[in-house]
Amino acid sequence: MPGRLVECVPNVSEGRRQDVVDAIVGAVHAVDGVRVLHVHADPSHNRSVITLVGPAEAVGRAALALARAAVEHIDLRAHRGEHPRIGAVDVIPFVPIGETTMEECVALARRVGSELWQTLRVPVYFYAEAATAPHRVRLPDIRRGEFEGLAEKMAQPAWAPDVGDPRPHPTAGAVAVGARRPLVAYNVTLHTADVGVARAIARAVRESSGGLVHVQAMGVRAASGQAQVSINVLDAIRTPLYRVFDLVRLEADRHGVAVAASEIVGLVPLDVLVDVARAYLRLWTFERSQVLELRLVE
Amino acid sequence: MPGRLVECVPNVSEGRRQDVVDAIVGAVHAVDGVRVLHVHADPSHNRSVITLVGPAEAVGRAALALARAAVEHIDLRAHRGEHPRIGAVDVIPFVPIGETTMEECVALARRVGSELWQTLRVPVYFYAEAATAPHRVRLPDIRRGEFEGLAEKMAQPAWAPDVGDPRPHPTAGAVAVGARRPLVAYNVTLHTADVGVARAIARAVRESSGGLVHVQAMGVRAASGQAQVSINVLDAIRTPLYRVFDLVRLEADRHGVAVAASEIVGLVPLDVLVDVARAYLRLWTFERSQVLELRLVE
Repeated sequence: MPGRLVECVPNVSEGRRQDVVDAIVGAVHAVDGVRVLHVHADPSHNRSVITLVGPAEAVGRAALALARAAVEHIDLRAHRGEHPRIGAVDVIPFVPIGETTMEECVALARRVGSELWQTLRVPVYFYAEAATAPHRVRLPDIRRGEFEGLAEKMAQPAWAPDVGDPRPHPTAGAVAVGARRPLVAYNVTLHTADVGVARAIARAVRESSGGLVHVQAMGVRAASGQAQVSINVLDAIRTPLYRVFDLVRLEADRHGVAVAASEIVGLVPLDVLVDVARAYLRLWTFERSQVLELRLVE
Repeated sequence: MPGRLVECVPNVSEGRRQDVVDAIVGAVHAVDGVRVLHVHADPSHNRSVITLVGPAEAVGRAALALARAAVEHIDLRAHRGEHPRIGAVDVIPFVPIGETTMEECVALARRVGSELWQTLRVPVYFYAEAATAPHRVRLPDIRRGEFEGLAEKMAQPAWAPDVGDPRPHPTAGAVAVGARRPLVAYNVTLHTADVGVARAIARAVRESSGGLVHVQAMGVRAASGQAQVSINVLDAIRTPLYRVFDLVRLEADRHGVAVAASEIVGLVPLDVLVDVARAYLRLWTFERSQVLELRLVE
């Protein structure tokens, strides 16, 4: 697969009707050069997360095809689910992989957003790195009020969409299109059953209470019974995993607790692992192009 | 590029005549599904190292095509160079990549060795993991006596070839075909100009003087003027880089010297890096299939 790669992780508001999920994923399969890496349909959220990857141009076409299928099959007026949402296709983030730059992903988000409005008449908010104003950077802010409050929200000048008329699509609402760094779901398991320790460590390492930027964390009990610090690293390039791990380890040590293991949930871009090897081995000059398998992709 | 991948690093006895090197590399390019990752022609050794990769079957055909071109263009009776050699195509190692097993590479070596004799009439020694006896495992033992002493050596029962008549090909000699783990050239640079410290560390960490198996090491002065431990890890899966690095660091500490940096020279299979991340982050359950970019290769 040649060219500069982009990952795209669209979320659609359907996680129960398998035929609808299949139709939406099928629209991506029909686009040449794009691969579907993962589909996670969540019935309680009534929402599906599709992970796809390919060269930028093809991924853009796949995102549009997916959005078209979602708009066709999903009527938000009848949608119920635990996860907040504003649209049939709720959010479309583009993530740079390898040599691809964030600028390319922002440009792709803008292009796709513009076409979404032109072809499907769904108004678009640009978010994250593609945002046009600080109050539109975070998804929770864009989603506040949800589909049900969208008509009223869009009528406010501060919440006029970036592309399209300030009125929701009658059945498909609106869509947030953006560009962001790779997000990594990362758990660190402790040699203790005391969830209080995991909670204290979570507070110490997360952004919201004085820890590392780009880090969300909470203390939970893992299926094994061990206490676990459950973490989302929202930008695992700027705040690398080794820094998160080392800080968790130091804080655990303060409680006299050892780290048993850590785990990466789901897929991870190679650069996140390369950064780990680079830091611990002090491999300052290492380039990802030295990875043999990558010579076959890029 | 689909299928289970094999790396192949044939060494041919020509490093001066560029047209001959080009013809030999060209024979590989003509094989569908195989990529040439690197060509290193060394005039003083009068020898070239070609690195190629692809699915096992295609890599086998590429090795045969390369051997045919080498036999056609190289006459060892007129060959001079610093590096010991027994053949026009001197050695053909197959290296398992990713999910590919060593057994598959041994089987590939056997198949290619057999065809080399049948089509080119070059007798074959199987070496490394493909060896048929302990005295044939190491290349230096197979090469001892070189092309010039080969007729006499092959007449000894202990050195009858594994495939073919016990007589060298008149112009192309013999060839060693084998399977081995990835070899990594790895240097650790110290915060001292004292090469004596690097030499002491090299003695401590290398197999030949009581250190780690699969590790060769020597102390040298780097271009920067800093002392450096220059290392070959002959099996970087069994003896992982993090163990080599940590031992070098501990030994350096004994001398009151800090490690400035380390470097991997040339290409490295992803698994070598994954092992580093796994060890330092205690990512015990991590699988290489979680690396996003690999979904595009395998």
